[in-house]
Amino acid sequence: MSMKYLTAKLAQQIDEELMNQAGAFSIDQLMELAGLACAQALARVYDKKRYPNVLVCCGPGNQGGDGLVAARHLGMFGYTPTIFMPKPGSKDIYQPMRQYEDQDYPPSNDTSALRDALSSSNVILDAIFGFSFKGPIRSPFDSALPLLSGSRLPIVSVDIPSGWDVEEGNVEGVGLQPDVLVSLTAPKLGVRSFNGRHFLGGRFIPKTLEEKFELNLPEYPGSDQILELKE
Amino acid sequence: MSMKYLTAKLAQQIDEELMNQAGAFSIDQLMELAGLACAQALARVYDKKRYPNVLVCCGPGNQGGDGLVAARHLGMFGYTPTIFMPKPGSKDIYQPMRQYEDQDYPPSNDTSALRDALSSSNVILDAIFGFSFKGPIRSPFDSALPLLSGSRLPIVSVDIPSGWDVEEGNVEGVGLQPDVLVSLTAPKLGVRSFNGRHFLGGRFIPKTLEEKFELNLPEYPGSDQILELKE
Repeated sequence: MSMKYLTAKLAQQIDEELMNQAGAFSIDQLMELAGLACAQALARVYDKKRYPNVLVCCGPGNQGGDGLVAARHLGMFGYTPTIFMPKPGSKDIYQPMRQYEDQDYPPSNDTSALRDALSSSNVILDAIFGFSFKGPIRSPFDSALPLLSGSRLPIVSVDIPSGWDVEEGNVEGVGLQPDVLVSLTAPKLGVRSFNGRHFLGGRFIPKTLEEKFELNLPEYPGSDQILELKE
Repeated sequence: MSMKYLTAKLAQQIDEELMNQAGAFSIDQLMELAGLACAQALARVYDKKRYPNVLVCCGPGNQGGDGLVAARHLGMFGYTPTIFMPKPGSKDIYQPMRQYEDQDYPPSNDTSALRDALSSSNVILDAIFGFSFKGPIRSPFDSALPLLSGSRLPIVSVDIPSGWDVEEGNVEGVGLQPDVLVSLTAPKLGVRSFNGRHFLGGRFIPKTLEEKFELNLPEYPGSDQILELKE
């Protein structure tokens, strides 16, 4: 039995069950483990000596929260994270970076600031859009995405590369082209054809939930929080 | 400069700064990372094939919460955790095990149940007393600790072996004798003479806090959440 690729609806349903039914994880718990997995996957591929400066791009939702937790962990690992977060979020998800260096990150949609940040970055962590993304890409992201792509920096995308349809993939051709993908809990339908390095993270799905949705997740090695998927 | 061993007061102060000042971590975030570190340290030493059954002993405070998070992670790693929790806690810290197998763990002070659990366990995770422990050992733990010691099972203690004075160590001689110790954030004064395998976990102290308290923490390897201390 092969691993299941999730529809947007099923991804949403699993998220809700994790937070409302199967033992009620708090969003802090899920985000902590998801963000840690993203940071560890980036660190596995991009050594901090050669790629010390990470531009962490965050959307206004939970995906952006994962990115901020990842940024804090990357800081703990010895990287220098810079946050690009052009749109404010509605919840407490912007706390994690303050935890790292006691500093606020006011949302900024300053294109020239983004250009500057890109010019001093070695790798991008893309945590802009997640599995609840529905196109088209709206402002301010419509101007940011081409800049990220144009930078030619390596990109690590979280869950679904920003700009891709969650189920159809990069059909519009306007999405980012990541080198590395970190699928959280299980990969989404839209990334079936992704052929870069592909990691699984979010090792928190209870067995009951995995069986209920027939996810057929592969076995993580030892006590690792990430697992690299091979063809 | 060598690593600082913490007084009970300083450990308390660091905890408070983490939760109230330095970016205000939530208790869920701290517990998730602490519990993960404990589970990973146990897994590093006790292979799940030879030591599949872990008796996780939890106190009523935050230390017990770390133990429950560790139990959930141990379950994810493929161990079979059993919880011994004789005294109810006051907060939400008992959620994590429900997250693992959708099951409640009513506090039980049933000595024969503990004997049974011990007879089918391969290793003990001791998360009973933490850095806020002040002796003497009271009921129901005064009867539980001798049973744990008498089992001759290997013991992994979290932060401070249960029954030890946080600053003076096992001065009363009534504490557990762990084979493995996981110190969270930084070791406490009482474990200076501990000579088993000693891990550091809780990789979340911001640089500013580390410097303020002159902790001189050693550098964790790569993106690991635990670090083994060597003499």
